[in-house]
Amino acid sequence: MNNVDRLQRLEAVEDIKHLKARYFRWVDTQQWQELRTLFVDDAILLFPETDPEPMPIGQFMRAVEAAFTGGVSIHHGHMAEIEILSLNTAQAIWAMEDRIYFPPGVPGIRGASEIHGAGHYHETYIRRDGIWLFKSMKLTRLRLEVKLAPVTVI
Amino acid sequence: MNNVDRLQRLEAVEDIKHLKARYFRWVDTQQWQELRTLFVDDAILLFPETDPEPMPIGQFMRAVEAAFTGGVSIHHGHMAEIEILSLNTAQAIWAMEDRIYFPPGVPGIRGASEIHGAGHYHETYIRRDGIWLFKSMKLTRLRLEVKLAPVTVI
Amino acid sequence: MNNVDRLQRLEAVEDIKHLKARYFRWVDTQQWQELRTLFVDDAILLFPETDPEPMPIGQFMRAVEAAFTGGVSIHHGHMAEIEILSLNTAQAIWAMEDRIYFPPGVPGIRGASEIHGAGHYHETYIRRDGIWLFKSMKLTRLRLEVKLAPVTVI
Repeated sequence: MNNVDRLQRLEAVEDIKHLKARYFRWVDTQQWQELRTLFVDDAILLFPETDPEPMPIGQFMRAVEAAFTGGVSIHHGHMAEIEILSLNTAQAIWAMEDRIYFPPGVPGIRGASEIHGAGHYHETYIRRDGIWLFKSMKLTRLRLEVKLAPVTVI
Repeated sequence: MNNVDRLQRLEAVEDIKHLKARYFRWVDTQQWQELRTLFVDDAILLFPETDPEPMPIGQFMRAVEAAFTGGVSIHHGHMAEIEILSLNTAQAIWAMEDRIYFPPGVPGIRGASEIHGAGHYHETYIRRDGIWLFKSMKLTRLRLEVKLAPVTVI
Repeated sequence: MNNVDRLQRLEAVEDIKHLKARYFRWVDTQQWQELRTLFVDDAILLFPETDPEPMPIGQFMRAVEAAFTGGVSIHHGHMAEIEILSLNTAQAIWAMEDRIYFPPGVPGIRGASEIHGAGHYHETYIRRDGIWLFKSMKLTRLRLEVKLAPVTVI
């Protein structure tokens, strides 16, 4: 187990589940400052569905806030596959489902009134000063369904 | 950790996950007597969407049975944030999604044929005689969608 | 605890969660060979909605591959109730939700274009050579909704 004892491994697994739970909750309650604290400063995020290039954390924070403000998002995670690689490094795959609802007359991302999708997060983590944080995050999709907002012609 | 050792903390976290799993399953399989055993006698529940006042457990049990009998409910919990506060007290936040289907011609709560929602449970727990039980439960909503049953005019 | 120490029990619970996570992911990413490795050779599976008789693993693998290839399936598990019965045996109940989408013009199981359901897995596990594997799996349903593909008449 690479110098991680059995109890430390179980604690790390639970801590990372707790980290991911706060990630989802703070996205959906739009607590952007709290959300930012879950990432290391050099974290890298990749959402190929919207951008083929990895983003630094600052760009991600701006994109998330722009995408969700004014709408309602619901992100749920499921079924962690967490591997503790060493005392301070880990990786995981999570299943996910997301729904985003935009208000009538105010189409959101891609001109949508609703988005419904599912896929997997592939993530790495670092423990700094005893706290587990996101080091990288990549989202792959099984499905992404976009319901277009009606177009108004004046 | 307030007199809780590391192994006890991990066991308490798993026990509380197990408690919440039985809560969801027994609601959806409508096993009301079993459901009742998961709460302490002085448990307090708050569902602001239906009642702005906290309810004692007896009132909650009557309300749940009245609301769901005859319909099909599906409640799923996700992403626990559990904090063990002492050997016998804990609190948690859970993400949730619920769906309720009422039979054709028999509208349910709010005249609905279907209800689909998501939000968070905010809960406290007490350990009595070695068993973790619900002490309080509050549900906050991100979204609650009610599909109205068709109205028949005679 | 039948000769299972407290740390072993927690490790077994986490290992079984990891097993079930790979089950769901490999079904949905259609990695059939990897999926097969999660079951013992004499595993028995029961899906009463499609077949009232239990199936051996070989029959299950053929049925899953035939049912999902060409479509997109999304299976999510929730809220484990895992019981470690001995050092090498365990059982669990899991809540689940599944969605299957078949391509336009190619109806899937039951002539469906989409299937959406929820229910519970009831499972047993065996640990062989230190690895937890599925010994049996049964799916019970709260609901199963089949959206029929449109019928084309020539």
